This record gives sequence, structure tokens and C-alpha cells, in this order.
Amino acid sequence: LPRHPCGPTRHEASRRTTSAWWRPRSKDTRKARSTISGSARISRRGTAASSRSPRSSRGTRRPRCGGTSPSPSTNGVKPREISEIITHLAFYSGWGNAISAVAAAKEVFAERSIGPEQLPAATVQPLPLDEATEAQRASRVAGQYGAAFPGIVQYTTDVLFRDLWLRPDLAPRDRSLVTVSALVASGQVAQIPYHLNKAMDNGLTQKQAAEAVTHLAFYAGWPNAFSALPVAKDVFEKRGK
Amino acid sequence: LPRHPCGPTRHEASRRTTSAWWRPRSKDTRKARSTISGSARISRRGTAASSRSPRSSRGTRRPRCGGTSPSPSTNGVKPREISEIITHLAFYSGWGNAISAVAAAKEVFAERSIGPEQLPAATVQPLPLDEATEAQRASRVAGQYGAAFPGIVQYTTDVLFRDLWLRPDLAPRDRSLVTVSALVASGQVAQIPYHLNKAMDNGLTQKQAAEAVTHLAFYAGWPNAFSALPVAKDVFEKRGK
Amino acid sequence: LPRHPCGPTRHEASRRTTSAWWRPRSKDTRKARSTISGSARISRRGTAASSRSPRSSRGTRRPRCGGTSPSPSTNGVKPREISEIITHLAFYSGWGNAISAVAAAKEVFAERSIGPEQLPAATVQPLPLDEATEAQRASRVAGQYGAAFPGIVQYTTDVLFRDLWLRPDLAPRDRSLVTVSALVASGQVAQIPYHLNKAMDNGLTQKQAAEAVTHLAFYAGWPNAFSALPVAKDVFEKRGK
Repeated sequence: LPRHPCGPTRHEASRRTTSAWWRPRSKDTRKARSTISGSARISRRGTAASSRSPRSSRGTRRPRCGGTSPSPSTNGVKPREISEIITHLAFYSGWGNAISAVAAAKEVFAERSIGPEQLPAATVQPLPLDEATEAQRASRVAGQYGAAFPGIVQYTTDVLFRDLWLRPDLAPRDRSLVTVSALVASGQVAQIPYHLNKAMDNGLTQKQAAEAVTHLAFYAGWPNAFSALPVAKDVFEKRGK
Repeated sequence: LPRHPCGPTRHEASRRTTSAWWRPRSKDTRKARSTISGSARISRRGTAASSRSPRSSRGTRRPRCGGTSPSPSTNGVKPREISEIITHLAFYSGWGNAISAVAAAKEVFAERSIGPEQLPAATVQPLPLDEATEAQRASRVAGQYGAAFPGIVQYTTDVLFRDLWLRPDLAPRDRSLVTVSALVASGQVAQIPYHLNKAMDNGLTQKQAAEAVTHLAFYAGWPNAFSALPVAKDVFEKRGK
Repeated sequence: LPRHPCGPTRHEASRRTTSAWWRPRSKDTRKARSTISGSARISRRGTAASSRSPRSSRGTRRPRCGGTSPSPSTNGVKPREISEIITHLAFYSGWGNAISAVAAAKEVFAERSIGPEQLPAATVQPLPLDEATEAQRASRVAGQYGAAFPGIVQYTTDVLFRDLWLRPDLAPRDRSLVTVSALVASGQVAQIPYHLNKAMDNGLTQKQAAEAVTHLAFYAGWPNAFSALPVAKDVFEKRGK
């Protein structure tokens, strides 16, 4: 249903021919689709560059569609970011899903001749750590769960917050957006408050968060999106005070 | 485990040969299986026709098994209904699952030589809308979430309740049954009260709802079914008052 | 990330070569990995044999890695246990997932020339039932849900607790471990208290339960593990009193 501002890719176009059931039909739908194009313009990284940490080294922005852009991935998501998103989701959506995504991504990367020079290096320089915030988080979690669950508490510190989250090829704001999206998509509402707050601390605006949930309604199903609404609304309200 | 009243299809029979682990073995199981056949008779559309909206144009009922029925799909679910179920679940279980289901359904439809004349038309006449009920729903949701989440609130009105739910090739009662099933199967208990009430308003009886949850215990796992029980029970009790 | 104490299998080693993104890189990760090896030694059945019911007929223990062990499955999980785990999860994770697992397991069993003599027999002698405990459970559930949901309540008794749970080729403690793992992995926190208590009644120690949740953080994603923590902690505390 959502129409890409640049029109369907060849792949989408051929799919459209064979799946008559999702062909738009009513006036309402047409109106909705133009609204999607409009809102997509807002949610597509319009303000992301400014709110993104200066540590993130990003190339110059390219025009996103049509034209003569040589950009290998539409929407401006870079191969190294895609690689990091999969790594990140190995921890937040489970190892098995990530392994499946690796297989799919490898194929797409091969088709596009994306080599190691466009992907994260084996050894990377971690982003600087906000020691005070991390100490606070670690101490709170250790107080809650350290006695009964020493293993996961230690891994959460060592592997997640002092390693994964500091990998430089995905900006912290984007890493948070991926995390919140994974939580909404899997119905994990209990973890939304912490990560939505962290996302907004990392530069995600309230409007972008709301658009992300809206977008996820289509891709993860309406129920997951609607279950996220009261929780996200509560986060917005508490931050507004 | 559940034995089809008409006996296994050839496909099921061949599968049974190769998966010894689910071969019934005890007296208890045998008893359970005959109970399933019995309850299946209740849950299989026995009362559906009468509670179904007169707008729904359905062919004459055919004998469901044995005999000389030329019915191309067992259990009487029509290809156009299956198509609509997939469309519906695109919104309630996520787009990706629907795309996968389209591929599987296309193959089955091709095997059975099911052509466009048995599938929903590209342009359909929507069912009449209950304006009062929809206005009430829209106003309630807008009041709760309209300010912070204008996108999803607008799509819920335009794309779901003023478009998807009015498509004529799946009766509202069946559309509700599909929705509630998707919620139970994905553990989305928070959304059950609204949709189970809507399902019962659309003609689903309490007994049918209970049988659906029972059925889903086998197909979506016991935990999802058991998590639905207290919520569904609460809906039943509130409606009973 | 977790390093098997016996080193990667050939399959893992070849996968490692092609997925550079999960190659360990930092000091922290290396430390974490040696911790994993250590904790794996604890969680791998160290104390399981003693807590396992004497009814369970198990062969002699074999050395687990290196050496000349002819053990066909690493970590000591036997084919008949794997078969039972899949059967068990048909009910706790949904039939479709089990059918997919059957296909995968059949292939592995064929590669290893595992025949019927290493798998559960078609007819088995059920484990003795703890009638008092089961009567209590059945009565409690019937009181809560029997009137509105007679079908699932009856199946829960006949098919699950008087049949599935009594199959002899998977020890009750291991069956409970599988069940709790399925609940954590699918975010079904509401069902955790009952089954974690049952698991500990069946001999799972608190430390093993905590390690299982830690392990599942990697395989089912951090959010599912973290959502289980407060619930599991509450179970531990109530049992400690």
C-alpha cells in the first residue's frame, strides 16, 4: 500500500502484477497513500543528520531517487549500517533471526558488489562511553537482578552496553530506533519505556517515534503498534513534564 | 492429533507415515481424538450461516466430505475468503507474513485451477458502514492517541475501518474470527477485549469463541491459548451482565 | 559468540569464515567469551543426573568432546530426547513450528544414520502420575475456566498432563526446562510462574533456571530475557520464604 516517493522498484512492480489482492481500489485508499508519501518525507531522516552524534562519520548526502544517484541502497541506508543493524538485532531479536538476515543480506551485497571496504572493519574504534549514565544503568540493573541472575547482568554490561552499543558504524540514535522498532514489532511492550527514553536521549524526536510506530503498524501488524501506543504515550507525557 | 471427520487427506496420510512421533498411542489420546471430532462439528460453521450478515453472498452449502462434492476447498472456505483472510492478516499479523502467505496460496490456487473469477474483484462494492459505531470508535481512539500519533490514528480509520473491514468477500463475523485468532496466536492479549466484543457483535457466539481458543491451543501453542483465557472470560462475563 | 568448550564444529567454523560481522573483536568480548565457556560448564547438565527421576532410563554417561566418544549428538542430548522435545514443543510453541522442526530433525537423523531404535517407540509405558498434584491442578483450572472453555480444559488434562508430560523419553525436569525456555523465548511471561515452579519441583535448581534465562538472552533476544527477569525473580523469592 505505501507508495514509495520514487515509484515502485522493478521488483515491487512485478510483484504488484501478480498480487491483485493488495491493489488499491477506493478513494479512501488513494487518499491514504498520498498521506503516506507525505509523512514518509517527514520520517525519512529529514532531521536525522542534525540530531546525529558528530562521532558518526557519514559520507555526503546523495539525492535519494531518480536522477543519476549512484547510491547503492535506496533511502540512504548504507551497507555498513545494514550490517550493524543485523548485528544489533542478533541481540535484540534473537540470534537465529540475525543468522537468517545475514544470509539474505550477503546475497543482496553480492548482487550489488558491496565488498569489505563498505562494511564494518573487523577491528573498530568504539565510540566514547558516557560513563556516568552507564554506571547508573549498571548499578540499577545489578540491584534488581544481579543476585539472582549474575550471568545476564554481566553480559548486559560487557557485551551490550560496553561493546555492541559503542560500535561506530551505526549512530546511537539509529541504534535506538532499531531497538525500539524491534520491541514494537515483537510486542515487547515492557521494554519500551527504557529504550524509548534512551532513543529520545539519543536524538529521536517524539514525532519520529510516533511515525516509526505508525510505519510498524503496516510491517509488524496493527496489534503490535496499538499495544505500543499507551506505553509510548506515557513516555512522551512523562518527558514533557 | 485432531482427526478430520472425513479422515486424513492423502497429504496428511503420507505425512503421518513419516512422523512417528505424533502417532497416537494411549487410550487417553484416542478418547481425546474422538472428542475433537465431536467438537469440530460444533465449531465448523454449524451456526455461522444464520448469524452471517445477509449482505454476504454465499453459494449453496455443499456436503463437506466424502460423497461427490466438487468443493475445491475442504471445510467450505472459499478461495475468495482465503484471499480476503490473507489481505486482512496483512494488517493484523504484519505485511511480511501476508506476502509469504500469498506465495503459498498462489501455488495452491494454481494446483486447483482457481482463477480470478473465484477471487475478489479488483474493484468491489464496500459493505455499508455502521456510521454511528464507527464514529464512536474513531472519536475514542482519536481522544486517546490522536494528538501524539496522528498517523496511525488516521490510517486506522481510513485504511482499516473504512476500507479493509468493508470488503465484501469475507463476512464481518468471519473477519472478526480471523482477527481474534491472530491476536490469540500472537499473544496480543491487550487487543483481545475490543476485538472479541466486536466479533460477538458481528455474530460470533460465546461457544464458538471458546472453541476457537481451544483450537488455537493446538496450532499456536498452549501458552498463547492460556494467556487468552482470563481476558476472554472477562469479556464473556461483562457481556453477560 | 559463545565458544563451545570443544571448539567449533566444522559447520560452525565454516560459517564463521563467511560472517565477519560477528567475529569477536574487543577485549571485553574476549573476556565475556571465556565467562561463557565457564558458565556453560555449570549449566550443562552438571547436576542434572542426580535430580533426574529414576524412572528415566538413560544410558551411561559418555565423555562429551574430543576423545573417542561415539556419541552421535554433542552435549549429550540423545535423539530420543530431541524427538520428545519437538513433540513437547508442538503443544507449547504451536504445531506449525514442530512440523518444521520435524523436517529439520529428520534430515540430521538421516545424516547420522539414527534409526527407530534410537527414537521413542510408537507405544510407550507412561511415567507414573502424581495423582494428587494433578487433581489439584485440574480442579483449579476447571474452577477458573471449565464453564466457559470446556474444550481446552479437557484437552489440558487428557492430552497434556495425562499423556504428553508422562512420555518417558524425556525426563520431567528436562521437559520443564524446555517448557520454561519456550515461554521465555516467546515472551509468554504470564505462563512463567506456574511452569517455573513446576520446573523447580521437577529438580531444576534456581541457578540453572537463571543460566537458562541468560542463555536465552542470546538465542531469543535480550528483550524476552529481560521481560522474564522480574517474573522469575518473584518465583524465586516466593519459594525462598
